[in-house]
Amino acid sequence: FPSRLPNVGTTVFTIMSALAAEHRAINLGQGFPDFPCDRKLLTSVNDAMLADRNQYPPMIGITELRNGISQKIKNLYGHYYDPESEITITAGGTQGILTTILACVSPGDEVVIIEPAYDSYRPSIELAGGKTIAVSLEVRRDAHGQVASYEIPWDALAKAINSKTRLLMINSPHNPTGMVWQKADLDRLAQLVKNTSTLILSDEVYEHMVYEGAAHHSVASHPELAARSFLISSFGKTYHVTGWKVGYVAAPPALTKEFRKVHQFNVFTVNTPMQYGLASYLADASHYLNLPAFYQAKRNFFRAGLEKTAFKLLPTPGTYFQCADYSALNIPQAKLNEADFCKWLTTEIGVAAIPVSAFYDRPTESGVIRFCFAKQEQTLATALQRLQSL
Amino acid sequence: FPSRLPNVGTTVFTIMSALAAEHRAINLGQGFPDFPCDRKLLTSVNDAMLADRNQYPPMIGITELRNGISQKIKNLYGHYYDPESEITITAGGTQGILTTILACVSPGDEVVIIEPAYDSYRPSIELAGGKTIAVSLEVRRDAHGQVASYEIPWDALAKAINSKTRLLMINSPHNPTGMVWQKADLDRLAQLVKNTSTLILSDEVYEHMVYEGAAHHSVASHPELAARSFLISSFGKTYHVTGWKVGYVAAPPALTKEFRKVHQFNVFTVNTPMQYGLASYLADASHYLNLPAFYQAKRNFFRAGLEKTAFKLLPTPGTYFQCADYSALNIPQAKLNEADFCKWLTTEIGVAAIPVSAFYDRPTESGVIRFCFAKQEQTLATALQRLQSL
Ligand SMILES: CSCCC(=O)C(=O)O
Ligand SMILES: CSCCC(=O)C(=O)O
Repeated sequence: FPSRLPNVGTTVFTIMSALAAEHRAINLGQGFPDFPCDRKLLTSVNDAMLADRNQYPPMIGITELRNGISQKIKNLYGHYYDPESEITITAGGTQGILTTILACVSPGDEVVIIEPAYDSYRPSIELAGGKTIAVSLEVRRDAHGQVASYEIPWDALAKAINSKTRLLMINSPHNPTGMVWQKADLDRLAQLVKNTSTLILSDEVYEHMVYEGAAHHSVASHPELAARSFLISSFGKTYHVTGWKVGYVAAPPALTKEFRKVHQFNVFTVNTPMQYGLASYLADASHYLNLPAFYQAKRNFFRAGLEKTAFKLLPTPGTYFQCADYSALNIPQAKLNEADFCKWLTTEIGVAAIPVSAFYDRPTESGVIRFCFAKQEQTLATALQRLQSL
Repeated sequence: FPSRLPNVGTTVFTIMSALAAEHRAINLGQGFPDFPCDRKLLTSVNDAMLADRNQYPPMIGITELRNGISQKIKNLYGHYYDPESEITITAGGTQGILTTILACVSPGDEVVIIEPAYDSYRPSIELAGGKTIAVSLEVRRDAHGQVASYEIPWDALAKAINSKTRLLMINSPHNPTGMVWQKADLDRLAQLVKNTSTLILSDEVYEHMVYEGAAHHSVASHPELAARSFLISSFGKTYHVTGWKVGYVAAPPALTKEFRKVHQFNVFTVNTPMQYGLASYLADASHYLNLPAFYQAKRNFFRAGLEKTAFKLLPTPGTYFQCADYSALNIPQAKLNEADFCKWLTTEIGVAAIPVSAFYDRPTESGVIRFCFAKQEQTLATALQRLQSL
């Protein structure tokens, strides 16, 4: 039978993790921590199981967790989402993304994405029958031609948005580049969509990883944007439990209503004991407020080590990803394309990374790869030793 | 923006559970147990959490669980599914269903379903852009005009299947009627699809609830059907943990390949500690082999009590649902349609049930409602007392 996704293979994260395992490489590819989560969180889940909270929760998620999320968003970003009509618990951020797209994109609708983009965006739009309009972050290069930073492509965005644009997908802090949108960026975005019927999907799963004391600027902090946005986040990255697959979508009632119609027939609902465990853990704000300092230390340690190499480091104001340009490495492999360079790095040097080209649909080579630094210092140290040998 | 599912409201199970809670009715509506699951299963999950199995599992699910499922299917139904290329862990049966449909139904394709049907089928097909062709189970009535049984509508099925039929969805043991397909039925189905390119989605989430010593006839027991089927099952119902949302899809490699393309961009993967807990629990076959006796006792107890009322009982060879025709009750409410009768029963009599009409798209009134008997004997006894007052 004809494939619904003829151009899709296995996601790059799965492939690189398998390759890393096969070659016993240090896996700085797929984004997940190699250290344990807080035991308190596990105790909360176990308590919920022992209290017989193992049957279907409400379709929209348990009240305690939706209330906690509403309070967190209010405290951090100043916007109140009604837990009953505006917040839905999802089986992770990815499920929130596909479900949002299925709920609001009709065949023929255009959806604007900004590449490099998480690899689920495009196939999700395809499944909904939508047309992906991709614009690319502007790549700024230094005097040596190496990538120095990425910038929001305002002109291209303005051109891409028209009356057929049902949805614009944004992501800050951004995977893979680590860039973070500023308040002025949200203002500019609001101007751009002002007189359109374009909705916004804002993927904010790295919201608690912004460094140097800077703030995360959520669409929830911007009333005009909040009124037309699906705000998507997840607990896996924040609480070091990427395998738990619990996230949420916050959106105005009319958007949430359509979201839930699809959600109930996709997963119906989300793991009950995990929801209870997360709800009590979320009540203590220190658990996410301490995260920037925790990851900033890892980022600084990893960057300091990489600075001793010929990798050119990109700025990392957010996320747990460090991008680096390898084109100035004084080895023949520096001429390889990103995918081949990552394979070589994994199999020969013993450090797995992700090619940034995997986040583009059309072949786009910048000579930049992504490392995940959500690792124990010892893991990062060993990886750095290997990279310093290049 | 235009709704993708304009005719869809909140699923009947959510609505009836909310109504039951509001009126403190005994909830025999939505299908879930009111008794605890085995503590051993909880210990297994907790052990997995404490062993730091909290990060992303492989996208297709952990090896241990896929191996266990493969063995179980082999032992029970005689067909070997390769765990690597033919089995994928899902976030419950419902996610397996939508994902299957998105993976193989293209816009314009026809999908045949048999009503009464689980309420996710039709909207899932709609989201894929498919056209739902619904045939209805034949309703057999007794001399008094009351519903006596449901039969597979072979003639209507034969007429419905044509060259545009991409998928046929079947479900045995059947929710809501409790009917069970026989070996001869599978043979007949195989004949029907023999020279077509129709795939089969076989929803077998109640596979371990077949009574009187009879066997469940899985598509896995029928090589011709297995070769073109997505076999869908789930652990929530079998192990009394409906809130855990872990299931699986078994299908030949070519079908699995397409399934996983969509799966990875829907949920990416499924809760890690639950997968480990279920894998070790599944290794002891007695945990599912004892299930028929366990539920048959509840079924018999509930039926014996209902037989003292004017409800006319339908046969229940499988599932944990008991259907009953209420049209001969000697009360004015016996004239109500099924939905109104269920509301009245919930709010006034204190017993929630599900109208079978909710499983049909077009208004279809048979005067039959569905009770779930997956409850403690005390719960069933109290419900029966109330029903016997009618
Ligand atoms: C869903 S697997 C990949 C994890 C992740 O978000 C990433 O590595 O970019
Ligand atoms: C997914 S909620 C409903 C549970 C169920 O399968 C049923 O009651 O029919």
